[in-house]
Amino acid sequence: MTIRQKLYNIIFEAETPTGKIFDLSLLLIILSSIILVMLESVPEIKLKYGDTLHILEWIITIFFSIEYILRIWVVHKPWSYISSFYGIIDLLSVIPTYLSLIVVGSHSLMVIRAIRLLRIFRILKLNRFTQAGQNLGKALWASREKISVFLFFVVNVVIIVGTLMYLIEGPTNGFKSIPASIYWAIVTMTTVGYGDISPQTPSGQFMASLVMIVGYSVIAVPTGIVTSEIIKGSRSTNTQTCSNCLYDRHDDDAKFCKKCGTQLNE
Amino acid sequence: MTIRQKLYNIIFEAETPTGKIFDLSLLLIILSSIILVMLESVPEIKLKYGDTLHILEWIITIFFSIEYILRIWVVHKPWSYISSFYGIIDLLSVIPTYLSLIVVGSHSLMVIRAIRLLRIFRILKLNRFTQAGQNLGKALWASREKISVFLFFVVNVVIIVGTLMYLIEGPTNGFKSIPASIYWAIVTMTTVGYGDISPQTPSGQFMASLVMIVGYSVIAVPTGIVTSEIIKGSRSTNTQTCSNCLYDRHDDDAKFCKKCGTQLNE
Amino acid sequence: MTIRQKLYNIIFEAETPTGKIFDLSLLLIILSSIILVMLESVPEIKLKYGDTLHILEWIITIFFSIEYILRIWVVHKPWSYISSFYGIIDLLSVIPTYLSLIVVGSHSLMVIRAIRLLRIFRILKLNRFTQAGQNLGKALWASREKISVFLFFVVNVVIIVGTLMYLIEGPTNGFKSIPASIYWAIVTMTTVGYGDISPQTPSGQFMASLVMIVGYSVIAVPTGIVTSEIIKGSRSTNTQTCSNCLYDRHDDDAKFCKKCGTQLNE
Amino acid sequence: MTIRQKLYNIIFEAETPTGKIFDLSLLLIILSSIILVMLESVPEIKLKYGDTLHILEWIITIFFSIEYILRIWVVHKPWSYISSFYGIIDLLSVIPTYLSLIVVGSHSLMVIRAIRLLRIFRILKLNRFTQAGQNLGKALWASREKISVFLFFVVNVVIIVGTLMYLIEGPTNGFKSIPASIYWAIVTMTTVGYGDISPQTPSGQFMASLVMIVGYSVIAVPTGIVTSEIIKGSRSTNTQTCSNCLYDRHDDDAKFCKKCGTQLNE
Repeated sequence: MTIRQKLYNIIFEAETPTGKIFDLSLLLIILSSIILVMLESVPEIKLKYGDTLHILEWIITIFFSIEYILRIWVVHKPWSYISSFYGIIDLLSVIPTYLSLIVVGSHSLMVIRAIRLLRIFRILKLNRFTQAGQNLGKALWASREKISVFLFFVVNVVIIVGTLMYLIEGPTNGFKSIPASIYWAIVTMTTVGYGDISPQTPSGQFMASLVMIVGYSVIAVPTGIVTSEIIKGSRSTNTQTCSNCLYDRHDDDAKFCKKCGTQLNE
Repeated sequence: MTIRQKLYNIIFEAETPTGKIFDLSLLLIILSSIILVMLESVPEIKLKYGDTLHILEWIITIFFSIEYILRIWVVHKPWSYISSFYGIIDLLSVIPTYLSLIVVGSHSLMVIRAIRLLRIFRILKLNRFTQAGQNLGKALWASREKISVFLFFVVNVVIIVGTLMYLIEGPTNGFKSIPASIYWAIVTMTTVGYGDISPQTPSGQFMASLVMIVGYSVIAVPTGIVTSEIIKGSRSTNTQTCSNCLYDRHDDDAKFCKKCGTQLNE
Repeated sequence: MTIRQKLYNIIFEAETPTGKIFDLSLLLIILSSIILVMLESVPEIKLKYGDTLHILEWIITIFFSIEYILRIWVVHKPWSYISSFYGIIDLLSVIPTYLSLIVVGSHSLMVIRAIRLLRIFRILKLNRFTQAGQNLGKALWASREKISVFLFFVVNVVIIVGTLMYLIEGPTNGFKSIPASIYWAIVTMTTVGYGDISPQTPSGQFMASLVMIVGYSVIAVPTGIVTSEIIKGSRSTNTQTCSNCLYDRHDDDAKFCKKCGTQLNE
Repeated sequence: MTIRQKLYNIIFEAETPTGKIFDLSLLLIILSSIILVMLESVPEIKLKYGDTLHILEWIITIFFSIEYILRIWVVHKPWSYISSFYGIIDLLSVIPTYLSLIVVGSHSLMVIRAIRLLRIFRILKLNRFTQAGQNLGKALWASREKISVFLFFVVNVVIIVGTLMYLIEGPTNGFKSIPASIYWAIVTMTTVGYGDISPQTPSGQFMASLVMIVGYSVIAVPTGIVTSEIIKGSRSTNTQTCSNCLYDRHDDDAKFCKKCGTQLNE
């Protein structure tokens, strides 16, 4: 096995011990790099530990760069990796740091490094969690149409409510424009309720009360949809029939018929 | 086929290619016209692009007017269209713009154009979404009594809580009147929580804590109702209607109508 | 039938046409009297229409007084009515108005009249709604233990979280005392979020974030409990067996066997 | 039976009448001591009733100390009690009061006494409530993987959303740093919505609207997960354990173990 093949197994496979160690180290470095980006954005910390953060940032960037080059080298079809979703993310994880050398004042570019977060998803292949995640994903995917209809309905309601509130309260009470009123309607319907905009007139408060009570009942709809799908998904898909008593509603994990004790076929 | 018939097919039917293109264009124009109404309400945008918006508004109004006249012309019973729900909406979509020529300062009338939003519902006849929408609608309709009872209960609770808080906190702490206190109770029970009115005295805060915890548990009720109905509704996919009694909610494994015993067709 | 018996039927029974009219009128008068109490609490309205409200108040009070006396007269056991829940409410509905004649400045007593709201529950005997209400009540009652455990858990969590936040944030950041911090914890856990108290220090905000995410997941628990009970309650209780094919899982509203079309016994 | 044995039965067992009285008294004293800690933290109350609270505190502390010593004396393995979870809590419940004699200004230590709250859990062995609590616990435990996946997803979303909002709104609009923006994202996603930080720019408000609507739909997921498990858990009331393989989640109609085919006892 050539070095290239060995490296391929370490970087792209997670079965071997070295591969597992590599994945775990990478996970830790990615998490560190994200915390680094966060800390850099805090003015007090940047002022105090700016130099340390800068050095750490370069260490991580160089590590990620070497990893990126190695990935291109060991992979069979380099171009398909480079142009893949994760390939682009890997590149975007290091470019902003190099750009900061060339372009002056590319502060906002530095935040793009937060995209490193998405790298986590590649490493996380923990079997049981992925299984649970897939089940949830399936349930959400199965309810996509109903949820779309629901969201379409919500969008229509907030536009209508927003326009009405703009008429009722008007710019003098903080409802500056229809888009601002729609923003208020969303803040209210979803029960977030910042309070940066709130109705001042009695009729506006009455209207708002109606919206809140409707929103309170309406939240039941997505919950009902998703719950229904999760329950459906967790039902048995076992189609075996007991050869002895012909019972055919066995659980997925049943090995023997619960009615007569006969062993079931695999 | 006369022009009138052809136009009827284009405007009122969505099966033909031309009909589909017409529907899609109309959808885009309606969406544009709504965005237009929104943008006009933003003072900065109105100041800057007022003239452009004005011209666009007239283009859309004239398009809608022609469409309205054509609809009256091609339809078999013009009067029943004019007096129908969508007929009135179609008219209200254009009238405010014309009125703005005659009546000076009819600003608030302009917002009525937002009613154009409702026109979207006519166009949206996408089959799968409508099916999902109908299922949701059925589930909500089937739970209408329980939800009414629940809302009646909530209304009673907020009136009682509002009155109590008016007594406990009083006008000096922002609870200016019983209606204002009821408004606060709704804001709190529905977990919106603007914070424009909030209890100041320890006893008021204790009362509010109780209300919040109750509200937190009570939100489970509509969710439970709707979820139960959605689960029920998602069980059967049998769309047969009994030829004798017209009952149409048969189970998947039904071979005879459970209401009248008539055999169902496969 | 004596007048007393006739009056008894009108006042206490809802089956006869006159009884229905009486109930409906009473419902309207009660609603009016509640709106009256609310309006009186609004300073602007009291200033302007104080006299009108005063007169209306006396009309309603006299009507309620006559009704109260009639109820005592026509009922078989007057004392058991007077000392009953509704008897006390009926009395409390009129007393404050009379007291305002004798005691000067009994403003807060006037609000007690809001207790009239509870009178509504007696009149509302609409069958279908009561049925739905009872089903909901049953579901809630069946889940009382689980909800108690849940509330006990929530109370413990908010006490612990409140104490911790008092230590972390302290009086200078608005967390004035442990009870005030517990109040904040309830406002946050229930996702109400007034914003009158909010964490200022990074560690306080981190702690608050944890509380919110936990609260967000925890709201699933009462919903799950109630939904489970409602689903259970809405399951079929029909225990009939088809005399022809022995199928025994009929819906509650089934009159014929859905498998073979045989009529079921009542 | 020696005094030591008798005391053991009273303190550690709840079956005997004296044991029940002891448990109830202890519960009341613990509750009083917690209320005491709370009241002490309120400046007004401390100023007024400081001395009374001080005396009560010492009475409770001495009672708890005696109880602690007795527990060590009567228990068979004193060290395993001292080093147990409840043993440490019992010690931490009294230490701060004694420390306040030696160390001056150990105010923050006094709050540690709130840990006494955890003592309640030992006493509460009410059977029915424990049963309900265990069922809830099982349902939550069975959904731990799905909820972990969900929380992992939520954490990722709030980090991404927080970073984006930091870029869009920036420090001038209250989004001071990425951690602060993530805090805002959590406050918004969980629909708490304090309003201490809220988007000011139109694009920020648009972004926030998306986050709210997503958060509104996403809350359906934990609810669906937990509801599904609770429904599953409430289906079977069969408490038998297979004598062969010890499996204990049999269906109500199971006659044989579905895991190993062993016949179950009635």
